[in-house]
Amino acid sequence: MSEIHTLTRSLQKKNNSKIVLLVADGLGGLPLQPGGKTELETANTPNLNALAQRGTLGLSVPVIPGITPGSGPGHLGLFGYDPLEFQIGRGVLEALGIDFDLGPDDVAIRGNFCTLDENGLISDRRAGRVSTEVAAPLCEKLNQIKIPGVDVFVRHVKEYRLVVVFRGKGLEGNVFDTDPQATGVAPLDPLTKDPNSARTVDVAKEFLIQAREILKNDQPANFLMLRGIAKRPPIPTFEEVYGTKAGAIAVYPMYRGLARLVSMDVLDAGQTLEDQCARLKAAWNDYDFFFMHFKYTDSTGEDGNFDAKVKRIEELDAAIPAITALDPTVLIVTGDHSTPSKMKSHSWHPVPTLIAADRCRFDGSTEFGESACRLGGLGQFPAKYLMPLALAHADRLEKFGA
Amino acid sequence: MSEIHTLTRSLQKKNNSKIVLLVADGLGGLPLQPGGKTELETANTPNLNALAQRGTLGLSVPVIPGITPGSGPGHLGLFGYDPLEFQIGRGVLEALGIDFDLGPDDVAIRGNFCTLDENGLISDRRAGRVSTEVAAPLCEKLNQIKIPGVDVFVRHVKEYRLVVVFRGKGLEGNVFDTDPQATGVAPLDPLTKDPNSARTVDVAKEFLIQAREILKNDQPANFLMLRGIAKRPPIPTFEEVYGTKAGAIAVYPMYRGLARLVSMDVLDAGQTLEDQCARLKAAWNDYDFFFMHFKYTDSTGEDGNFDAKVKRIEELDAAIPAITALDPTVLIVTGDHSTPSKMKSHSWHPVPTLIAADRCRFDGSTEFGESACRLGGLGQFPAKYLMPLALAHADRLEKFGA
Repeated sequence: MSEIHTLTRSLQKKNNSKIVLLVADGLGGLPLQPGGKTELETANTPNLNALAQRGTLGLSVPVIPGITPGSGPGHLGLFGYDPLEFQIGRGVLEALGIDFDLGPDDVAIRGNFCTLDENGLISDRRAGRVSTEVAAPLCEKLNQIKIPGVDVFVRHVKEYRLVVVFRGKGLEGNVFDTDPQATGVAPLDPLTKDPNSARTVDVAKEFLIQAREILKNDQPANFLMLRGIAKRPPIPTFEEVYGTKAGAIAVYPMYRGLARLVSMDVLDAGQTLEDQCARLKAAWNDYDFFFMHFKYTDSTGEDGNFDAKVKRIEELDAAIPAITALDPTVLIVTGDHSTPSKMKSHSWHPVPTLIAADRCRFDGSTEFGESACRLGGLGQFPAKYLMPLALAHADRLEKFGA
Repeated sequence: MSEIHTLTRSLQKKNNSKIVLLVADGLGGLPLQPGGKTELETANTPNLNALAQRGTLGLSVPVIPGITPGSGPGHLGLFGYDPLEFQIGRGVLEALGIDFDLGPDDVAIRGNFCTLDENGLISDRRAGRVSTEVAAPLCEKLNQIKIPGVDVFVRHVKEYRLVVVFRGKGLEGNVFDTDPQATGVAPLDPLTKDPNSARTVDVAKEFLIQAREILKNDQPANFLMLRGIAKRPPIPTFEEVYGTKAGAIAVYPMYRGLARLVSMDVLDAGQTLEDQCARLKAAWNDYDFFFMHFKYTDSTGEDGNFDAKVKRIEELDAAIPAITALDPTVLIVTGDHSTPSKMKSHSWHPVPTLIAADRCRFDGSTEFGESACRLGGLGQFPAKYLMPLALAHADRLEKFGA
């Protein structure tokens, strides 16, 4: 068991405090040139700056220095689950990303439609990036597949991508991809080295036989390959490890899924930040801990659009008064990783983090930005320590030892 | 396997980037009094300061806070090998220090010439610090020793110090020193508690019998004692763990040896920094990663000569343009530990570190020195994380998780 959870399990205490964890996805950025400002530093953020003045700043390291996390490890870290200890398979993340409610008996798989030639060899691993209009109905046909003793679910994701879930007792997820990562060869058969996954191999074989028959006349998507075959790992619940009842308010399915993974309640978040703030207010008395997720700081960064990311940060800033009006005991603003628009991708750079609470050791910060965070009172710290810090500032942890 | 290497093995990717790791041995220093400047801060370093302006600074902790490393752990840390996990025996380091190319079947031993009295008791553990002129020919005589099934190598190091290597199958290195660390007693017999090292004990006994006969008339060096008996531990190659082809350009044998330990190619470095830069240029297209080592910042520190260390740092600074002219993707300047001239020794103080690359989060630094590094964007970090940071800045690591 992780050192963090060993401590928080034994030290947790209850009170009426409220903690809000506001995650601006990919918040951290880069200046475009030496001496320049990052997106967050460029944005006009009077409300975040006011929080910085009555809080403590720092930079969080999502995994270890130099390692760029995906959304999964990024959020697990923020939730206090060491991302190196809790590794989530690709199939599971893909299923979470479409809001599929994975249970403990489910094996989740990323599917790719592909094109086979007349000899059964792969001519296109992505079926010409077949459109959603064409692929979605094919998924509905595949969803009709019946295999004795197992429930089969097939859900479309986007273009050539789909999710397949096998639900049944005695299924394990240690099965190799059937995608050979090459064209001109046949898809691989499902194989495993794990005796406990033998049943999954049989199910996958039967699924592929039926799928081949169903898709045989569909061009270009006349077959599919299976990747990232995995089960949801056993993960202790958020309530168990921290003693807090947690609600998640996230617009995008992936983040609802990640919250569900640690057994948070997933609340209806609507479509906008305004909707999310209204939900927060409505649910205020029902939970101790709220995870709110804002996607667009990441997507604008991924687009390489510095100015758009600045605007999205200003939009986030404008939502702060609706949150502070509820008077949370602890309000944290941070990101799951950096997404510098200069790089158009996630990055390893440490993430600006702000904790505002009465129990903060105020550090003289006057604004929220990477440079201020670099000099802030939290220093640079592994993201997995954010949760014990949150609980501490909410007076939800007893003293360790006498 | 170390957490770092588990990640870098699975995430490594190839490109045409070039990384230069320039290690100024013992770079870190201390001011002579409160409010004063360190050696690095006193030196006039326009080129390093320019790098600081387009880079990110920090302080690296070689092992853990408070622990002063030798050259071995210091460099292993910089190479990304946790110095607490990869511990190198003294005999191995001594052999590396004279450029002896140790193989996997070699047991390496530090030898000390000593003086025995007429009763066979030690009267001088260092044989009166016998001169190199006297000791070197004795080593040549000892090098003639033949033991069936084993190759024996005896190499002189300096004054009373030598290296003995036994090469053969079935030899392990868990044998106690024969030096009792006292005079007036007899040297100890080779002993082990490890059944796998029994053969080494037999070989060492036979070696000492023959050595006693060979040296019996040589005063004061009429015998020798064996210390630091050790094998090279299994160490994964640099290329394996990082996917980079690495060349080492170091003038001193110890640092060539440390590079060889992680399977870098050891290039002819000449005698001067100018020679080293010329070699770097000549080998530029043959490697992805270059380790360049500069010794004199350490040796002047060990001499307690503040001004001489300042001059050596200025010499290093003058070499920077020859390196930047090659346009490395990532240029790192750091040390393996601090060697404050005030202390005349290695120290535990964290080490000034500079990463210059386009993907840096610039931190507003205007000069390279301990104070600037303390406020830098890398913060204080374990030295073993420098390699993942180097790879990240060179775009040589995939994202971790989806």
